[in-house]
Amino acid sequence: MKISALLTSAGINIGLCVLFLSLYSVLRKQPANVRVYFGRRIAEENERLRGAFILERFVPSTGWIVKALQCTEEEILAAAGLDAVVFNRILVFSIRIFSLAALLCVFGILPLNYFGKDIKHVRIPSESLDIFTIGNVEVKSRWLWVHCVALYIVCGVACILLYIEYKHIARLRLLHLTSATPNPSHFTILVRGIPKTAKESCSDVVDNFFTKYHSSSYLFHQVVYKVGKVQKIMTGAQKAYTKFKHFTDETVDQGCRTITYRCCLCGTSSNSFKLLNTECEQNRGKTGNESSLKLDDEECTAAFVFFKTRYAALVASEILQTSNPMKWVANLAPEPEDVYWSNLWLPYKQLWIRHIVTLIGSIVFMFVFVIPVTFIQGLSQLELLQQRLPFLRGILKKKYMTQLVTGYLPSVILQIFLYMVAPIMMRFSTVELPTSHSERKRSACCKVLYFTVWNIFFVNVLSGTILSQLNVLSSPKDIPIQLARAVPGQATFFITYVLTSGWASLSSELMQLFGLIWNFIRKYVLRMREDTEFVPSFPYHTEVPKVLLFGLLGFTCSVLAPLILPFLLVYFFLGYVVYRNQLLNVYRTRYDTGGLYWPIAHNTVIFSLVLTQVICLGVFGLKESPVAAGFTIPLIILTLLFNQYCRNRLLPLFRTFPAQDLIDMDREDERSGRTDEIHHRLHSAYCQFPDTEDVPLEKIKIIGEDEEQGSSSGESTGKETREDPKRDLSHPTLKGLPVSRLRHAVKSITFLIRLQKRASRTGGGRS
Amino acid sequence: MKISALLTSAGINIGLCVLFLSLYSVLRKQPANVRVYFGRRIAEENERLRGAFILERFVPSTGWIVKALQCTEEEILAAAGLDAVVFNRILVFSIRIFSLAALLCVFGILPLNYFGKDIKHVRIPSESLDIFTIGNVEVKSRWLWVHCVALYIVCGVACILLYIEYKHIARLRLLHLTSATPNPSHFTILVRGIPKTAKESCSDVVDNFFTKYHSSSYLFHQVVYKVGKVQKIMTGAQKAYTKFKHFTDETVDQGCRTITYRCCLCGTSSNSFKLLNTECEQNRGKTGNESSLKLDDEECTAAFVFFKTRYAALVASEILQTSNPMKWVANLAPEPEDVYWSNLWLPYKQLWIRHIVTLIGSIVFMFVFVIPVTFIQGLSQLELLQQRLPFLRGILKKKYMTQLVTGYLPSVILQIFLYMVAPIMMRFSTVELPTSHSERKRSACCKVLYFTVWNIFFVNVLSGTILSQLNVLSSPKDIPIQLARAVPGQATFFITYVLTSGWASLSSELMQLFGLIWNFIRKYVLRMREDTEFVPSFPYHTEVPKVLLFGLLGFTCSVLAPLILPFLLVYFFLGYVVYRNQLLNVYRTRYDTGGLYWPIAHNTVIFSLVLTQVICLGVFGLKESPVAAGFTIPLIILTLLFNQYCRNRLLPLFRTFPAQDLIDMDREDERSGRTDEIHHRLHSAYCQFPDTEDVPLEKIKIIGEDEEQGSSSGESTGKETREDPKRDLSHPTLKGLPVSRLRHAVKSITFLIRLQKRASRTGGGRS
Repeated sequence: MKISALLTSAGINIGLCVLFLSLYSVLRKQPANVRVYFGRRIAEENERLRGAFILERFVPSTGWIVKALQCTEEEILAAAGLDAVVFNRILVFSIRIFSLAALLCVFGILPLNYFGKDIKHVRIPSESLDIFTIGNVEVKSRWLWVHCVALYIVCGVACILLYIEYKHIARLRLLHLTSATPNPSHFTILVRGIPKTAKESCSDVVDNFFTKYHSSSYLFHQVVYKVGKVQKIMTGAQKAYTKFKHFTDETVDQGCRTITYRCCLCGTSSNSFKLLNTECEQNRGKTGNESSLKLDDEECTAAFVFFKTRYAALVASEILQTSNPMKWVANLAPEPEDVYWSNLWLPYKQLWIRHIVTLIGSIVFMFVFVIPVTFIQGLSQLELLQQRLPFLRGILKKKYMTQLVTGYLPSVILQIFLYMVAPIMMRFSTVELPTSHSERKRSACCKVLYFTVWNIFFVNVLSGTILSQLNVLSSPKDIPIQLARAVPGQATFFITYVLTSGWASLSSELMQLFGLIWNFIRKYVLRMREDTEFVPSFPYHTEVPKVLLFGLLGFTCSVLAPLILPFLLVYFFLGYVVYRNQLLNVYRTRYDTGGLYWPIAHNTVIFSLVLTQVICLGVFGLKESPVAAGFTIPLIILTLLFNQYCRNRLLPLFRTFPAQDLIDMDREDERSGRTDEIHHRLHSAYCQFPDTEDVPLEKIKIIGEDEEQGSSSGESTGKETREDPKRDLSHPTLKGLPVSRLRHAVKSITFLIRLQKRASRTGGGRS
Repeated sequence: MKISALLTSAGINIGLCVLFLSLYSVLRKQPANVRVYFGRRIAEENERLRGAFILERFVPSTGWIVKALQCTEEEILAAAGLDAVVFNRILVFSIRIFSLAALLCVFGILPLNYFGKDIKHVRIPSESLDIFTIGNVEVKSRWLWVHCVALYIVCGVACILLYIEYKHIARLRLLHLTSATPNPSHFTILVRGIPKTAKESCSDVVDNFFTKYHSSSYLFHQVVYKVGKVQKIMTGAQKAYTKFKHFTDETVDQGCRTITYRCCLCGTSSNSFKLLNTECEQNRGKTGNESSLKLDDEECTAAFVFFKTRYAALVASEILQTSNPMKWVANLAPEPEDVYWSNLWLPYKQLWIRHIVTLIGSIVFMFVFVIPVTFIQGLSQLELLQQRLPFLRGILKKKYMTQLVTGYLPSVILQIFLYMVAPIMMRFSTVELPTSHSERKRSACCKVLYFTVWNIFFVNVLSGTILSQLNVLSSPKDIPIQLARAVPGQATFFITYVLTSGWASLSSELMQLFGLIWNFIRKYVLRMREDTEFVPSFPYHTEVPKVLLFGLLGFTCSVLAPLILPFLLVYFFLGYVVYRNQLLNVYRTRYDTGGLYWPIAHNTVIFSLVLTQVICLGVFGLKESPVAAGFTIPLIILTLLFNQYCRNRLLPLFRTFPAQDLIDMDREDERSGRTDEIHHRLHSAYCQFPDTEDVPLEKIKIIGEDEEQGSSSGESTGKETREDPKRDLSHPTLKGLPVSRLRHAVKSITFLIRLQKRASRTGGGRS
């Protein structure tokens, strides 16, 4: 690939980027798209933003960039949680280290590489890109020490910056822990593998165990129910309700353009719905212990156990409870919104086997994916393509086509394939039985990361030079040499990859193309009402691996092929702006890992550094420079020692909470007399079955409130729950509710929806 | 190697074994050797055994074998601790599995191998040993499924037995925990990495921290002092005292042949000694806080912290104390006798770097050791030897010499080299900063195990077939094939290894040659008095790897070259008898890991099984039997899954204690009112500086007691300690004792010893 081809590619991408950014700055100002671009703010700040943007119009502007840059870390933390801050720090780290690397390598190493061999240079645009890599430096060159020194500086500064960030995030994590409002998850453990007895119910077993062994701190517990028939019906009812609501609301909205909602179009359905709910409430009061006995066969081997203090919960989660480590397995509970309910009731003993199956599945998938990637890699080798597909020779002779094919096409096809990866990995992570959404996403993030690094970096590097990359695994000794031969040669591909995948993905992230189209279809084709509830959460499992992969590319190419660095730096700057904007405006944070993405990032950076050093070792070996190669070995050792130090010094803080801080918090609560209030709030913190009836009921009542201005029975029910914390909370809404009645409700709702659809069709014709 | 050579080797070894066993049965009955062969019993049952054996005399007998076989597991547990039981169970497991394997393979597979190829068989004694291995089976043989089935049976039964043993030992570990008398180590944690402050002393810092954060359960603490000048002088004084005591006692013993001891020969020395002690006691009462201030610069970053309950200590040891994971690092304390005092005061932050250094050191040592082993391996290839050293050709032509050289010599030389390994690995483990003797020994055990498996199994297997075994590491894909080619060929070497190293090492273990000779020299040449204090503890770090290595050889050869199994079975039977006898009579258990050797054994057996399966996979591949090879792969997966299950189900019990049992024990103590007594006893449990003065003082007093029949001041001092638990216990005997005085004491004792030596020389001449 030549400089001119690269410039063509860069030109296309810069053009696209500018286009997309301008488009975005216009589109975001259209009221119709406000849901797409300000989902978080609308969901959190409730309608306030609606009218604010209608005056500004079709002029591209840069105000959003300024806003994104101006917001502080505290604002991000408040708006999008600690994970967003961690993601932001990853970008900041990347910008810092690659600014230095770009400065150092572009001005220090690039000229050395370019004049490395005593050859006649043609005009720069016609120059091959390989001439800017270390491949152009003479064997036994006396200038290789410059590369070695640059490597030392880049790695050294990277480690220092990494340590500063690690410490900063560990501090933030602790602050997040201590400064937040009392978090029910800190007082709660999730117990799995509860032994079954014939005599006692699951609930009694839990109660007896914790009353016996944690009597001083045990508060109460809440059994997790098996997601069986009841849950299915409940989910069905909820879905039906949601659909029903959309249609009603929409019709109301379109019908009279006012905010005066009428509950339903047809009285019968509304009655059936209300009947169900009132009965539900009536039953709730009556049924006591008999109903809990009824549900016993649905009870399962998991429970949330609540403690008086944070410290007690921590202790209970850390120690081995009994002499059977597969029973009474306790972990700190995830936050209430974060709980992955549908997994909890599955038996704990399946966990280890599921982990192994997932691991094997992911690895197999990782290696099978190689096939299309290898094929794509073949595309970038023009000669090979012309040989294999002779009929293309005519087309490929055109210069423009050649440049397009070599510079652009491979990455695009690869990109399309890669879109499949994240959902598949997410599915794998679901099979792993995570207890929380955040755990699932983090696990998927790791899988996607391994996948990306293997399939984009290694497969591309190695398949170009040797027959099959699987062979490399079988001769680890030769890996440095193999990599050293391949990486500088593949730098061209990586530059185009940064241009296409990096820049373009940022633009499309900003544009939210899918969201935009879906919003359009939803609004104007399906004519559904906007769903305020549904705001996506940030896809850390795809974005973190992406940014880390670019970091890996940057490190490995920094000393060997520094031409990539300016492009990368642009990517990171753009990413910094775009992601901040997206975190602040688009995505909503429902759950948070509490900074657990950082150790992944740290490990990846360390891996990238060591890989860079190993490749440099191989290159220096190939260039027969024993001094440079010799000096690289201590650098590898030092980097690994640094990593080990970080593991000892900082990693434990990301695995557990320090007792000191928890005890201090407990005492502070006690001093301020908040303890009882916190304990009360715990009772309603975790609710397995989302209040399918409560939600519609409250909504209906609240909607009615506008007219009635009175206190709703829905709210008073809520107050009752808080005032009577001693009652059995294990299953507040479903107690004693006959399954047949629920089924009846679902049927009636479904019937309603059908009616409604017909009505809206005819109504749509009328309007 | 031919059958006849093997028989020669076996004959020599059987002869030697019988000779040694008979010699042992005679020697053990000689009163002079009673210290060598009954060290444990004498040390523990104090002199009672002395007169019991004098009547029986120079007739070899088998009574000891019967006794060793008759003793139950409970007796071993009581006499030698849980580690001894674990070791015993490893032997039992080996006997069981290899009995089955021998039965199955010798009668099922050996004939198949022997008649595997359609060749003319010569007389069996002249037959090469290779004819009994799988190497003799034809390619594409239709009998290979028998090997595959045998492999399945052996691996399946091994896993079942392994699981039974694992569960049994886990149960014993819990029993050991619960049934024992209250153990001070359960109430104690060892805290390291205590932050230094300028204002407060270390002791105050510890006190403040635990009073603040563990107020409900914290009892008191004891600071570990830096082992500096004081300790050196103390150790010097103790050594001097011990020598001094020997000479005095011996002279007394020789002089009048009665048990009436006089304190000392020369009054002056006795006075100086007494003076020191009384002063010491006087100072002990007087000095309060001033002395602790004096010792502040000697105080260091470790302390024992005592808790009211076992559960509280467990909790404190499991949780992360503060937001700096390198500070306030708490672990459950080792038992008082087990503490490795000289390491405790070293800074905790050195730990990780020392671990890495040790790891690298051990690996380097492991690979450097290859050189002599490779040379030795060359010796067994007779042709090579004759080529290299032509002058030996004459000697080697003699048939007997040939057989000796090929069958015997290599193992003997190897054995001599291997004797160096254990002390070196022990030294490495000491550098790792273990906090207890048992931890140090266990760590050394692991290192010796890795070393042994690599250097005896892999190096021998691989160096015979390819140029350098290091090359194998660089092509992991070919390992199964390489091993499959090499292992059946090396079976001959392994058989001789079992004969020489295995059988002979058991005989020498039983004979205690070094002990015997040293005892003789000590008694009749140096004329020193017997040292009842010094009884060695069982060398688990050499014996566990040895037994596990033979297990590995057995598994890998079982299906491929079953001829090794009978020899191995004899080894295990003999080992069972010998080790039981030694554990009961010779060695004394000072410290115990609580069964932590079992996970090592389990992992090694799993490794052996998987290795066997991989080798069989390679062999079946070489023999072009896709069915057999195909069926081996699920076996590997199943074995690994089994291992994972054990890791989940049983391993956690070996890492920590279950809270349930500890809480039950705490409650039991409370019910029976023993709590206060236990707390009192904790005060004197851990003593950093062994009571150099107290020991002699008490001894002297107790010796005097025989004449005086009165209450000794030494005992009353002991009572005082118990009655006054509130006093500062951090350093009971040394407080306020001026260093100059100690130095004076040492000088005077050294002077005494010189005097004494002269006296005994002249006395020896007289007697």
